[in-house]
Formats: sequence, C-alpha cells, structure tokens
Amino acid sequence: MVLPLQEAAQNKGVPLPEDLVDAIGHEKWSDTFIQELISDESESTLLIALEDIQLKAPIPRPKKNVFCVGKNYAEHAIEMGSSADIPKEMIVFTKSPTTVAAPDEEIPHYQQLTEMLDYEGEVGVIIGKKGKEIEEAEALDYVFGYTIINDITARDIQSKHKQYFLGKSLDQSCPIGPWIVGKEELTNPNDLRITTKVNGEVRQDSHTSKFIFPIEKIIHILSKGMTLEPGDIIATGTPAGVGNGFKPPRFLKPGDHIEITVEGVGQLSNTIMSIN
Amino acid sequence: MVLPLQEAAQNKGVPLPEDLVDAIGHEKWSDTFIQELISDESESTLLIALEDIQLKAPIPRPKKNVFCVGKNYAEHAIEMGSSADIPKEMIVFTKSPTTVAAPDEEIPHYQQLTEMLDYEGEVGVIIGKKGKEIEEAEALDYVFGYTIINDITARDIQSKHKQYFLGKSLDQSCPIGPWIVGKEELTNPNDLRITTKVNGEVRQDSHTSKFIFPIEKIIHILSKGMTLEPGDIIATGTPAGVGNGFKPPRFLKPGDHIEITVEGVGQLSNTIMSIN
Repeated sequence: MVLPLQEAAQNKGVPLPEDLVDAIGHEKWSDTFIQELISDESESTLLIALEDIQLKAPIPRPKKNVFCVGKNYAEHAIEMGSSADIPKEMIVFTKSPTTVAAPDEEIPHYQQLTEMLDYEGEVGVIIGKKGKEIEEAEALDYVFGYTIINDITARDIQSKHKQYFLGKSLDQSCPIGPWIVGKEELTNPNDLRITTKVNGEVRQDSHTSKFIFPIEKIIHILSKGMTLEPGDIIATGTPAGVGNGFKPPRFLKPGDHIEITVEGVGQLSNTIMSIN
Repeated sequence: MVLPLQEAAQNKGVPLPEDLVDAIGHEKWSDTFIQELISDESESTLLIALEDIQLKAPIPRPKKNVFCVGKNYAEHAIEMGSSADIPKEMIVFTKSPTTVAAPDEEIPHYQQLTEMLDYEGEVGVIIGKKGKEIEEAEALDYVFGYTIINDITARDIQSKHKQYFLGKSLDQSCPIGPWIVGKEELTNPNDLRITTKVNGEVRQDSHTSKFIFPIEKIIHILSKGMTLEPGDIIATGTPAGVGNGFKPPRFLKPGDHIEITVEGVGQLSNTIMSIN
C-alpha cells in the first residue's frame, strides 16, 4: 500500500515541501515524523494499492546532472577492453537531467542516431545532506537512500565523441526507481546482489561487494573540492554482462524489456521503443 | 548605468519571474517589453552606476551542468598533444552547477588537490528556448545571448581520472559574466576576438572564426536526441595559450589575476586564492 505523504502531512497541518529534493534534509522530513504519519494513517482512506498507481522517477528532475562512476567492477572493465582498463583512479562522467525516466516508461531507441544501444544495471545512491571533503568513515551519514538506475548508453556515440557525455545523455536514457529505500533500511549497500534480465534472460548477475570503489570511497573522492548536495544522484557503475561485452555484441532492439533487480531495493523495468 | 529590471517591472504592475532562467522564454521577458522599460526609466531614480554594484554570475545556479566543448580550436588541440588530437567529432564534457562563480569572485586553488590549475578563456552561449534535433540553419534562433566563461581546470585531476569531469568541477571553477549580451546585439558570434591575460600578460589571443565546430554546429550536435532548455549554458572551447601549453607549463598560483576579453561582450576578471 502507498501513503500519499503530502496529503497525510497536510491533514496534520504540517505541509511537506512539494519536491522530494527540497524535502530531503528538511527538518519536517525526519524519520520520526514520517514513521508517525505512517503509523497514524495505517488504516487511512488515503492509502492506495501500489498496483493502482503509476510511479514517477523518485527524483524526476534532479537539480544537476547525474554523477556516474565508470568501470567500477573489474570484470566489466575487462569485457569493455582488457585488464589494462581496470581503473586505478575513479572515472566519473555525467548524464543530463533530461535523461531521467520513470519505472515502466518506454525508452526511445533513436534509429537515426545509434545502432549500439546498451543497458547498464546499477545501484543508485541519493545524497541526503550537503558536504565537502567527506571522509570515508563518515560518508554513509551523507546518504539519504538507495535506488536502481539503468545507465542506458549509445556505445557508438560514446566512443565516437571520446568523452562519454553525449553517448550517455539521450533523452530518457536514465530510468530511475522504482523508489528510494532509506539508508536506515538498507545498511549493507556494498553487499547486494544485482541482476539484469533482457526479455527474461539473465545478462548481468553480480554483487556490489565487487565494487572497485565502494560507496564510501565514491563519496569521498567526489567531494574532494566539490560540494555534494541533498538530492544529488550517483550511479555506482555496472557489472559485467552488458550487450557490448558479448561476442558478437547483443545491443537493444525496439520491444526489448529490461528488468534490473537489486537485493533489498526492488525491480526497475523498462521497454525499448523505436523512434525514427 | 544599471536598471534593476524587477523593480522597474514591479512599478508597472507586471512583475518578472525572480530567476533569470525562469524569465528567459517567459512572454513578459520580451525584447519589446524590456526596451520599453529601459526607455521609460531612462531618467529613473532606480538607475544605479555600474561601479556601485557587485555583479553575480548572470545565471548563478544553472538547472543542469554547464555543457563544455573540448578542443574546439586546432592550435589548442595541438598544444595539448599533437595534430592527432584535433577532434573529428565534437568532444563534450560538463561542469557541475556548484562550479559557477561571479565576476571578480576569488577562485580557490586547493593546494592539497592540484598542482596544475589552469585557465581557459571561452565564449559562453545561453540557450533561449527549448529544442531538439535543431538544424544548423535555425540554431541561432535558439540562442538567448552570449557571455564569457573561464573554464578553470585542474590538469592533474583531469588526466588522472581519464574522463574530464572531476578535473573540471572544483567548486567556483567556472566564473561566468560579466553579463549576457542579447543575440540581437551580437550578430557575429563566430567572428569575435578573444584574449586572456594573466597578471596583465597576454596568454591567449585568438578569434572565434577559428572554431572547429561553430556555434550553429555545436547546438545541432548537442540537440541530437537531447533536449536543450532555456538557461542552458554552453562553453564553446578555449583557444591556444593555456598554461599547460607552455614549455615549461605556467600554471596558476594564488594571487594570479586572470582577465578574459571577448569582443562585443566585455571583460571577465577573477583572482586565484589559496585554500589549504
């Protein structure tokens, strides 16, 4: 069951900010207040069945580009090249806010622009409070929660333009969801199974324990000289098994159904749609 | 003299949106309305002398990362490597919105993070209306105006992490200004002299006629499969003469004063400040 928190809070005379990004870090958006709302409304007529709603991305319009870590699993670095591609220093690129798509939203395959559209199942981290020069030991204090991200990539555009940005920023190429699981409920983000299926066939089946740069280290490196802010989104990198890694490669076609599952978070599903 | 447009519009009973990004493309923010305000208020007590105000960046907080074109002048590509580095396809990376700094704002030199801080004088393009799949012939219709950008870069971080993003996104590493000149007033953006001085010494002296990818082409390529939006900022690339191009290299030191001049736009000045 789903509780519309804004309506519930409104009924208590303490309206929440309209936007989740504004709400994150806001004093009323405390765990205690939300827990209280949920238990007070446990029999509420406000409750809606999950299957009766259409989910949006938990942050439909981030206030900056999505941060993405490249080649954060050794086996994926190898499938994209060789063991020489295993990064010694963390690789970071971004996806424009216009890439964000909802769970179950159709993902465009621009037939004129790419012949090498690929999936990348990833764990997403949502930052919960502002910080800079964050030490690894404190890094998880800066996390609001976790989600699933499909870092859809046009491999031909990615390699042709050298820097990854253009191949990573086609509209709707960043499905996020189905929701954010609070960090209180997911205490082992570096120890989760992650799988990706295309049309029911398992393509990626790995574990975040294989991260080259665990989440604490990602936050530490990103925040060196750069302020992180509530609502910032970090895609933590994809494991081996992308379409580009098969011989011959197995890129996405219109109609393909991608389903990413992250232990303790849920499932994110999207279907590819042809655009001429 | 400077006219505070919001106050002037308020006096006419037609308040403008608070934020320039929201105002761009807004019907009241038409050239006619603004021209009318300016002529009506030509003797106004609202007018302030330019030297009595402290300018902010014209867009202090962009709604997404700043788009940056890499190696868009052949001589700069060569000074960064060799003629093999002249791009055949446009290179695009981004700078986080947290990098934006104001004219005359002090730019941090993080002593612990970089020993190779460098300047890059560039022409900035501000997008004026939403568009996608924009043809070159129509591209300038999507421009709101032009500004100056200093794409401050930590060369050691840039090369160590392979993708440029981290070396390009230190806080306050993107001074923008001093203002935006409307496209009606600057009809030859691909034919402007651009110079950069460090402590009064000319380091960069080039011309946007040397762009490998002129502004129309930049907008055309960026908008392939990716929606451009009002307020989007594009840094068009830097000419030869960056500190990294000298032998031995001449990187920025605390106290250095950088002044970028773009013909028809103005001057953008900033000073480097040490941060331990």
